[in-house]
Amino acid sequence: MSVLKGNAVVGQSGGPTAAINATLSGVIRGALDARKDGVINTLYGMKNGIEGFLREDLVDLFGTFDTEEKLRVLESTPAAVLGSCRRRLKEHEEDADTYERILELLRKHNIRYFFYIGGNDSMDTVLKLSRYAASHDYEIRVVGVPKTIDNDLMVTDHTPGFGSAAKFVATTIKEIRRDISVYSVKAVTIVEIMGRDAGWLTAAAAIPTVTGDAPDLIYLPECPFDKERFISDVKAAMERRPYVLVAVSEGIRFPDGEYVGASNSVIDAFGHKALSGAGKALEGIIKHELGCKVRSIELNLPQRCAAHIASLCDIREALDIGAAAVLHAMGGATAVMVTIERQNSDTYATTIGVANIADIANGVKHVPREFINEAANGITKAGIDYLLPLIEGEVSPIYEHGMPKHAVID
Amino acid sequence: MSVLKGNAVVGQSGGPTAAINATLSGVIRGALDARKDGVINTLYGMKNGIEGFLREDLVDLFGTFDTEEKLRVLESTPAAVLGSCRRRLKEHEEDADTYERILELLRKHNIRYFFYIGGNDSMDTVLKLSRYAASHDYEIRVVGVPKTIDNDLMVTDHTPGFGSAAKFVATTIKEIRRDISVYSVKAVTIVEIMGRDAGWLTAAAAIPTVTGDAPDLIYLPECPFDKERFISDVKAAMERRPYVLVAVSEGIRFPDGEYVGASNSVIDAFGHKALSGAGKALEGIIKHELGCKVRSIELNLPQRCAAHIASLCDIREALDIGAAAVLHAMGGATAVMVTIERQNSDTYATTIGVANIADIANGVKHVPREFINEAANGITKAGIDYLLPLIEGEVSPIYEHGMPKHAVID
Repeated sequence: MSVLKGNAVVGQSGGPTAAINATLSGVIRGALDARKDGVINTLYGMKNGIEGFLREDLVDLFGTFDTEEKLRVLESTPAAVLGSCRRRLKEHEEDADTYERILELLRKHNIRYFFYIGGNDSMDTVLKLSRYAASHDYEIRVVGVPKTIDNDLMVTDHTPGFGSAAKFVATTIKEIRRDISVYSVKAVTIVEIMGRDAGWLTAAAAIPTVTGDAPDLIYLPECPFDKERFISDVKAAMERRPYVLVAVSEGIRFPDGEYVGASNSVIDAFGHKALSGAGKALEGIIKHELGCKVRSIELNLPQRCAAHIASLCDIREALDIGAAAVLHAMGGATAVMVTIERQNSDTYATTIGVANIADIANGVKHVPREFINEAANGITKAGIDYLLPLIEGEVSPIYEHGMPKHAVID
Repeated sequence: MSVLKGNAVVGQSGGPTAAINATLSGVIRGALDARKDGVINTLYGMKNGIEGFLREDLVDLFGTFDTEEKLRVLESTPAAVLGSCRRRLKEHEEDADTYERILELLRKHNIRYFFYIGGNDSMDTVLKLSRYAASHDYEIRVVGVPKTIDNDLMVTDHTPGFGSAAKFVATTIKEIRRDISVYSVKAVTIVEIMGRDAGWLTAAAAIPTVTGDAPDLIYLPECPFDKERFISDVKAAMERRPYVLVAVSEGIRFPDGEYVGASNSVIDAFGHKALSGAGKALEGIIKHELGCKVRSIELNLPQRCAAHIASLCDIREALDIGAAAVLHAMGGATAVMVTIERQNSDTYATTIGVANIADIANGVKHVPREFINEAANGITKAGIDYLLPLIEGEVSPIYEHGMPKHAVID
């Protein structure tokens, strides 16, 4: 097979993470090597994912990140420097105009490599685009590059972005454990963690187990949430020590399928009602049933953007997978997502592979039952063994005026 | 004056901070020097502040932190390793037993130096104890050492613990700014920051101004909160860019004095009502008045316990002020609090002084009007000039299993 020559484009899509810009930097570094080989001439960045591409809102990435320092700053910048979108492409039968517009722009800019960094919805875009291009005889390599703090993508052992979010959660849980332990009065602290369908990030709250600082109780969306068992779990924990720490996924549901977070509501001054979230709902249960001091904390956006406490393992893998995407595409891969494969060895080691995009798009990988303890209120040693290597190592962002320096594209 | 010889005791009191253990380490280091000089023989730590002292729950601190590494780990451990309490002593006329018990224990352990690290309430304890001892002819040096994330203590230029909380707030605001900027839809993000009476920590959200990343609007408790002006402020900000970022103190109040956070409520599944907080209340206002996407984030406990992102300036000053407390006490000072004095120079420099405890206890230092802009929705350059040096420099905690290592006393 002869090498496919032309230009490349890369986009970022879906929710921000602390590692998605490191992956972008990996793609840039990979494409720079490909330029030396005469394969890729220009690397475009599309603003706001496929939406910006349709607007022909393109950035010259070789020009924008033209020094080693700029790339390093990019690698420690959270969120998506190119901007993002939540747009899902319709089937091409339903929206022919959009697909024709995409093909027109690909031809116009002689784009032969299309990299899309994102989660589930983004992989669906990779799937549809690659099928459409193939059926219209336009030779192009369409490669998905995974990212999500949720770690719920199929096939890949884990997803860039997750390790950094997990390190933030583990560190914050450990620090909160210190904070709540200073008083000797009975009190329950509930920490609500992101992950609507999969409990991977909530499971990361168990990592401080290795230093004796884990939450007393952890509830994932993978198991139905039983209110009575929760109350007795908290009572039992309180007999061991007065300050009880609970980690809970935003997505836990009662056995009847109703979200726990939907059982509570916030009424504003205008009488409007909104869901309060799982943490606040559990706070209400404890207050009513135990009558002790109780507080709930929502970790919120910092879970996905606290790049200052990113995992070095995660950022390195994010870089590597971006560069590997370019190599695999040059080697002929298309309609694939690059994946991380964990080696079966004593020490943690990974290699990067590829998987058919059709096996990944629109699936969800849940936390396996063997990672959750029998009582469904904690994480097993097998779970912690899986998680621990992903948060290892610290990054060294460049600081300016006492704050981490960030890359911005205007 | 002859040097007063005997034992010393130190306690931590009030809310946790990321720097209070560094101050404890400073006291230990200072007392170790005093031991070499034959002045202080044993340094006791009281568990849970004055409550633990009354229980005679004392720890030998020279023995507990007997290596340089243990002291270093202590200095990067958040919260209060000795535990804390919220107990305020009554006047001794009202509670003679407690004071007699304290004096009995001071005599029993030959304690001649009493260090109390804390905020406003703790300085009140220093004041009362020093008066009582003086009126009972027991020679002792009672010295307060300041800490609080609120920065609201009188006389001292600023308070250890504040710089680290401010660095966390500034860094998190900058990261959230990155996160919310990835989409191009209109949206308002409200960040609620601690500080019931004084807006110092909320003002720290303005520090990212120096890199163009400040919130669009900042509201402190020092100025009455006008709902109509808030709505027009947000509308105006939205014309400049679609994603508006607002930082708000938990303690803002309407012109009639009512807390904004009291205007909204959470109703739990049992029909119980609780205050929702200022952020949620503003979220309700925006949703109702502007109808756009809106989200509120409460930074919560990590503001006071995120030691991994502590300010080096803060931790160094916390250490220095702890050691200086010992020196001042040995020099004869009692019924004082050690203070940080900022030098009038081009570059940031401080010295440590002492102030009469009666001038400090029970007062509150507010953010001066000249640090707040005319429209009362932002911070002036003078305010940022005051704040910026306090967050400079990064600490290097020891990491273990991907998480910062902490000191714990069982």
